[in-house]
Amino acid sequence: MKNAITYPVSARGPADHEVRDQIVAAATEHFSRYGYEKTTVSDLAKAIGFSKAYIYKFFESKQAIGEMICANCLREIESEVKAAVEEADRPPEKLRRMFKAIVEASLHLFSQDRKLYEIAASAATEHWQATLAYEERIQKLLQDILQAGRQSGDFERKTPLDETAMAIYLVMRPYLNPLILQHSFDYTEEAPAQLSGLVLRSLSP
Amino acid sequence: MKNAITYPVSARGPADHEVRDQIVAAATEHFSRYGYEKTTVSDLAKAIGFSKAYIYKFFESKQAIGEMICANCLREIESEVKAAVEEADRPPEKLRRMFKAIVEASLHLFSQDRKLYEIAASAATEHWQATLAYEERIQKLLQDILQAGRQSGDFERKTPLDETAMAIYLVMRPYLNPLILQHSFDYTEEAPAQLSGLVLRSLSP
Repeated sequence: MKNAITYPVSARGPADHEVRDQIVAAATEHFSRYGYEKTTVSDLAKAIGFSKAYIYKFFESKQAIGEMICANCLREIESEVKAAVEEADRPPEKLRRMFKAIVEASLHLFSQDRKLYEIAASAATEHWQATLAYEERIQKLLQDILQAGRQSGDFERKTPLDETAMAIYLVMRPYLNPLILQHSFDYTEEAPAQLSGLVLRSLSP
Repeated sequence: MKNAITYPVSARGPADHEVRDQIVAAATEHFSRYGYEKTTVSDLAKAIGFSKAYIYKFFESKQAIGEMICANCLREIESEVKAAVEEADRPPEKLRRMFKAIVEASLHLFSQDRKLYEIAASAATEHWQATLAYEERIQKLLQDILQAGRQSGDFERKTPLDETAMAIYLVMRPYLNPLILQHSFDYTEEAPAQLSGLVLRSLSP
């Protein structure tokens, strides 16, 4: 298209992903101040200074914005967990750090920001895509550690890998899932050490 | 007291514990129909046909009645769990049955009677005496099984008994606590077998 006119970026306006990021950033701030459940897309539009129709061009619903915020939060937890796991050399220590980091990162996010916690709770209740994907990635990380431990000879190899991974995931779940985590605050101090100790004993060759 | 007059039972009216039982039975039915949170002591009095003042002679508050109902429910779960444990001979099988019975009995009670579940949820949120006592008795049962398994040579003896019992209790807790149980429905099918398998592997000598 020889004769197509190309506008300089500034004249074309911001790219779509920039607008989306801008909406998500503004929504995160707004939700964390006024709560997710109580806020409507109209409230949000007014607060950001966009029209409601303009927001709907980028997100089909409030939940779609919430999903994006939730996905960002869970990605943050996940990278903290991964960083903690990578710091350790051997699989048993990796597993121990994984337990500890999950509890710490989840608590950090959820107790620091009660209102965002509300989004994560909705996400967990309604089985949003973001939480399902997060749960799968955590299960994958767990399987990788188990696999490495089986290869290094640190862990037993008699049990089926996927069943063992699932059982350990069930042990972690009360500290991963925000709805359950809120009922486990009394135990978050000792739970990581006690549970990873138990799990490691169950994995001894 | 030679001259004390003793009335025949019928003239003295029902004994206190009989009235208490009567109130608890009526309240259980009323709550299970109309819900615990929404019912006031006045509603209850009207429904039972007692005066509010008469009810207050036996229970200082609605919560006191709720506590009694809750204690009865938890006692029922506990006896089902104990019966299941006693059916088995060896400690590993006892532990397996304990997991299974806890999940089944809790699910049974809580899914059959949603409204009573509400009482148990209040009890768990507000740390009522009935739930604390129940949790302690379950922990004791667990310790007894561990102790027996250590003596029979089925379980390891290297770890401190109380710490090991606590770690296993933490694994069970999501299925014991009604507030958490409601978020674990997706897992109640496989969880008992998977978790007791994991725990038994962790206990191998």
